[in-house]
Amino acid sequence: MPLMKSWVTSANSADTPFPLNNLPYGVFSVGDMPPRCGVAIGAMILDMAAVEQAGLLDLGDPDLFDMPFWNGIMDLGSEVWANLRARLTQMLAEGSTDQAALEPMLVPLDQAELHMPIIVEEYTDFYAGRHHATNVGTMFRGAENALPPNWLHIPIGYNGRASSVVVSGTDIRRPWGQLKGPNDDLPRFAPSARFDLELEMGAIVGQASDGPISVTEADEAIFGYVLLNDWSARDIQAWEYQPLGPFQAKATATTISPWIVTKAALEPFRVDTPAREFELLDHLKDAGPMLYDIDLTVTLAPRGKAATVLARTNYREMYYSAAQQLAHHTTAGCPMNVGDLLGSGTISGPEKSQRGSLLELSWGGKEPITLDSGETRSFLEDGDTLALSGAARGDGYQIGFGPCTGTLLPALADPYAR
Amino acid sequence: MPLMKSWVTSANSADTPFPLNNLPYGVFSVGDMPPRCGVAIGAMILDMAAVEQAGLLDLGDPDLFDMPFWNGIMDLGSEVWANLRARLTQMLAEGSTDQAALEPMLVPLDQAELHMPIIVEEYTDFYAGRHHATNVGTMFRGAENALPPNWLHIPIGYNGRASSVVVSGTDIRRPWGQLKGPNDDLPRFAPSARFDLELEMGAIVGQASDGPISVTEADEAIFGYVLLNDWSARDIQAWEYQPLGPFQAKATATTISPWIVTKAALEPFRVDTPAREFELLDHLKDAGPMLYDIDLTVTLAPRGKAATVLARTNYREMYYSAAQQLAHHTTAGCPMNVGDLLGSGTISGPEKSQRGSLLELSWGGKEPITLDSGETRSFLEDGDTLALSGAARGDGYQIGFGPCTGTLLPALADPYAR
Repeated sequence: MPLMKSWVTSANSADTPFPLNNLPYGVFSVGDMPPRCGVAIGAMILDMAAVEQAGLLDLGDPDLFDMPFWNGIMDLGSEVWANLRARLTQMLAEGSTDQAALEPMLVPLDQAELHMPIIVEEYTDFYAGRHHATNVGTMFRGAENALPPNWLHIPIGYNGRASSVVVSGTDIRRPWGQLKGPNDDLPRFAPSARFDLELEMGAIVGQASDGPISVTEADEAIFGYVLLNDWSARDIQAWEYQPLGPFQAKATATTISPWIVTKAALEPFRVDTPAREFELLDHLKDAGPMLYDIDLTVTLAPRGKAATVLARTNYREMYYSAAQQLAHHTTAGCPMNVGDLLGSGTISGPEKSQRGSLLELSWGGKEPITLDSGETRSFLEDGDTLALSGAARGDGYQIGFGPCTGTLLPALADPYAR
Repeated sequence: MPLMKSWVTSANSADTPFPLNNLPYGVFSVGDMPPRCGVAIGAMILDMAAVEQAGLLDLGDPDLFDMPFWNGIMDLGSEVWANLRARLTQMLAEGSTDQAALEPMLVPLDQAELHMPIIVEEYTDFYAGRHHATNVGTMFRGAENALPPNWLHIPIGYNGRASSVVVSGTDIRRPWGQLKGPNDDLPRFAPSARFDLELEMGAIVGQASDGPISVTEADEAIFGYVLLNDWSARDIQAWEYQPLGPFQAKATATTISPWIVTKAALEPFRVDTPAREFELLDHLKDAGPMLYDIDLTVTLAPRGKAATVLARTNYREMYYSAAQQLAHHTTAGCPMNVGDLLGSGTISGPEKSQRGSLLELSWGGKEPITLDSGETRSFLEDGDTLALSGAARGDGYQIGFGPCTGTLLPALADPYAR
């Protein structure tokens, strides 16, 4: 599919993340305006509350878009999702008769504040990238036991904390935690010294379920995707994670990009999961190509300095698709809700330059990396700004995700001071 | 404190779980009435929406009780909690001038349907009973490695799934899951054959926080307590839990009792945590007695047969209080919300008759227990009804929790059939 032309001329460039082919959904505000739903098109945001109030769009419910979240629209189901996308495509296409009516409803992206696009109901993070799991397992358990025995049979996941999910641009405070080094007799309470990023994608569940669903049904239930940085305190994790998994190590924050790129926009970029070492059980088997060819990059900029590319990888490196993760999530009857967020797990490729965390890039701190500024990093330093970016590349256009950034603030001197 | 007398005469018995000293909060309906807030008193429920509409209670907000959850009231804070309890105590006390006005607002408990008392925002389950952790650890890792090295320093917990929390009386469907026995070459997908209960208490967070809070602040933020059965598929758990903890093993359901027993009602029953083997770090240190002396019992009734007591234990057997668990939960900056639910972890005592799970009672299935009916159990059988009960025993009265029951239905023949 080639670039689709829009009367919003900034959407017709090969470089914009938001051509007419994309139409990602977010929540924005300008000045004192209450946050509301918007659609990104080129360098502009279409104010969906205004479109709705002008009677240019009728999805059968009068107040869907004058809301600071997309949950209500997701809840209406895939037929409405398709109708909305079709109508937006029609309205914003070159030659549309709606152009004159819509022009006053466009807001420049660079004047808007972006907010969380959804209410995150519950958040689950997976561990479904083979290169990442192999790297981490090798560091923690040795090369022979790198992958746990279940890993090639189940998309391993754990429940995270929805309350800690924040939108791109939110500052991240270095956490305190209980730490115990290998040579310490007793643990101590101190700021995390091994704070890290994790380059992931997030899948947003757009349809509820109340029992086991198949991989095909799971794919249908996914509304769209975001970039996701699962900030991780490695030293807290190392001490706390046995036997019940990560808890406070992952509770400080998880950052997502503000624009939900719909499954429909990503349709031309579907790719298969990798070859299987063991055949998956029937309920987890691939039911078509359910990964996506999305180039991913993460950069680190020390305070006041230029950014260095830490890694370049691709979402197709995952071993399990989000649909397989969601299907597994429901096997025991777990009810899923509209607005549930599923982190893919860290997306690392086979090469060192493709590793999606500092834990892997610095091999647990043993091989610090050198930034373009000449500084080195084993883990994150105060003032570092991390930025993820992602793009599926089509014929003369790209489907971009917008920013997924966060700056690390120093730990509080006394976290209990009031 | 002795029994406080009420004009609701059924509340004046030494046997009622709901004397005037208790006043637990729930959500009920009768017939087609929409569910609304109520307070249990003896054999009756006081319809709080009716009380509010009659102008007998003014907490500063007009529509607090005509709601199917107590989240809004919790959100108002501890001063309102105290005012509400004081006013209810006054209105329902023997000799109250409000008796004539309130009598028509009483609904017999046995005619009411009870619902979830709160919207559970997020659910965290802990592993903070030392006898349970020692028993399970001994089975899984041997007696010498029973307690993980962190256990005596941190209240170990993991995030659970709020969507799976159900109210007492909800049937539980035996889940399917990916299973692999120690002698199997490959996993298979089958109904769980080692489905179990866990006898716990749940603490309900009534005040939000957005950074680390102290143990004292955490205690102040807790609104009340419920009984909690954390249904657990041991065979799913054994295969899935490394390295990131339990996931689908705990996702089928968690049952809570319908009445929130307030912290205020439990005040006379505060007890200290056990002696510490290691001094806790300052931020987790006991700041007064924050456990409670609550007798707990769990029974199992096979279909159509009388119930057998499986275990009798007490909440004071916990190593960590809910306040310490909540304080730990916030150490890394994790935001907590009104309506968060914290499971205590399985509450086992030192004796075999005090073990709060079949995993422990049957020692992993190696020592099946015999029920009063002559049947044996290693794990739960289809049709089994589990019932938890709890009571703090005062001078001529008790603070009861009401029922926490669930019946296990057989697994679906094909969980994907529609």
